[in-house]
Amino acid sequence: MRLRNVSGAKEKIEASKYIVLEPKENKGKWKKVFGNDNPIHIEIGMGKGKFIFEHALRDRDINFIGIEKFDSVMVRAIEKLEDIELDNLKLIRTDALKIDEIFDKEIDTIYLNFSDPWPKNRHEDRRLSSEIFLKKYDNVFKSAKSIIMKTDNRKLFEFSLISFVNHGYKIEEISLDLHNDDYKDNIETEYETKFSNLGQNIYMVKVSKM
Amino acid sequence: MRLRNVSGAKEKIEASKYIVLEPKENKGKWKKVFGNDNPIHIEIGMGKGKFIFEHALRDRDINFIGIEKFDSVMVRAIEKLEDIELDNLKLIRTDALKIDEIFDKEIDTIYLNFSDPWPKNRHEDRRLSSEIFLKKYDNVFKSAKSIIMKTDNRKLFEFSLISFVNHGYKIEEISLDLHNDDYKDNIETEYETKFSNLGQNIYMVKVSKM
Repeated sequence: MRLRNVSGAKEKIEASKYIVLEPKENKGKWKKVFGNDNPIHIEIGMGKGKFIFEHALRDRDINFIGIEKFDSVMVRAIEKLEDIELDNLKLIRTDALKIDEIFDKEIDTIYLNFSDPWPKNRHEDRRLSSEIFLKKYDNVFKSAKSIIMKTDNRKLFEFSLISFVNHGYKIEEISLDLHNDDYKDNIETEYETKFSNLGQNIYMVKVSKM
Repeated sequence: MRLRNVSGAKEKIEASKYIVLEPKENKGKWKKVFGNDNPIHIEIGMGKGKFIFEHALRDRDINFIGIEKFDSVMVRAIEKLEDIELDNLKLIRTDALKIDEIFDKEIDTIYLNFSDPWPKNRHEDRRLSSEIFLKKYDNVFKSAKSIIMKTDNRKLFEFSLISFVNHGYKIEEISLDLHNDDYKDNIETEYETKFSNLGQNIYMVKVSKM
């Protein structure tokens, strides 16, 4: 998701107590950042943050790290946090390609919500569920690996299922019409609410690998 | 699929040259029945037969065996074959549970088209993609295993994906909206045409295992 340039975005982001400006320095020791041994869940491409913020508010015994590439999006997320106190949340502004430079065998769950579908075949490697990314995730996960994906993009979802399974993941849960299923714990992203209200089908899969 | 009792169905079925009345006698030697070494594809629950008959007409270098449980359905299929000469087609009237008594390491592909979804959890084992059936299929397949499933039933499809992958299958191809994809080779079943025309979504997956 890209937005227009937001003036002063960089300064606002750097001033936030949630932002980790030099994330690579914490590689392998993120539990120290949080000061506890709780599981760490990350969302790659958190957009304006509604999903991960609500998760962090609800599940206080899980540590959450939101990752977003674009300043112009990150600043909107940070504005939402101004009056909120969350000890179990950190934010990183970086490209997903660098994920294995930032974490080392310490993540429990990765959320991929409404990722860019990169529809052209020649851009397949840029999809966050492509082999190139799954290999990186192997290094950031602890031994047990869990990815939870939601999307409204059918082709991305089909591609991702094949990719996950080829990479050794099993399917734990799947819904081909999430909002017509009885998932009471589902936290919607901004995008999800908007497109679901327009009648768009939402797909969800949870995959795991030991 | 059940139909009313059809009078004289049993006699009509037994008189058909396509029917194999004692299929267990051919276990392990179906290539002799066809008189060649061509691959053998079976459809479990062929209904009125349109899918497998069109396949057999189109792909003459593949041998097809259609399996159907109900006399009342099988007789409708047989009536369609009255003026057709096909050397590469046989039909068996039996219950799918007996499949491993009929074949032994000689099948290349299994088609599961619009199988009974058995929606209640306590009937899960009756679904043709349940673990109990996948174990039977392991014994009827040659070393390379291939299952192609189509259904309009979302819950059956979700269940089947999990079941296939848990049983070691990889996903070769998948479509969550087959009739809006560009599958020019798709042969529709009677049911598929009817329900697709009513706006029903058709799901397809091709899975394989070595």
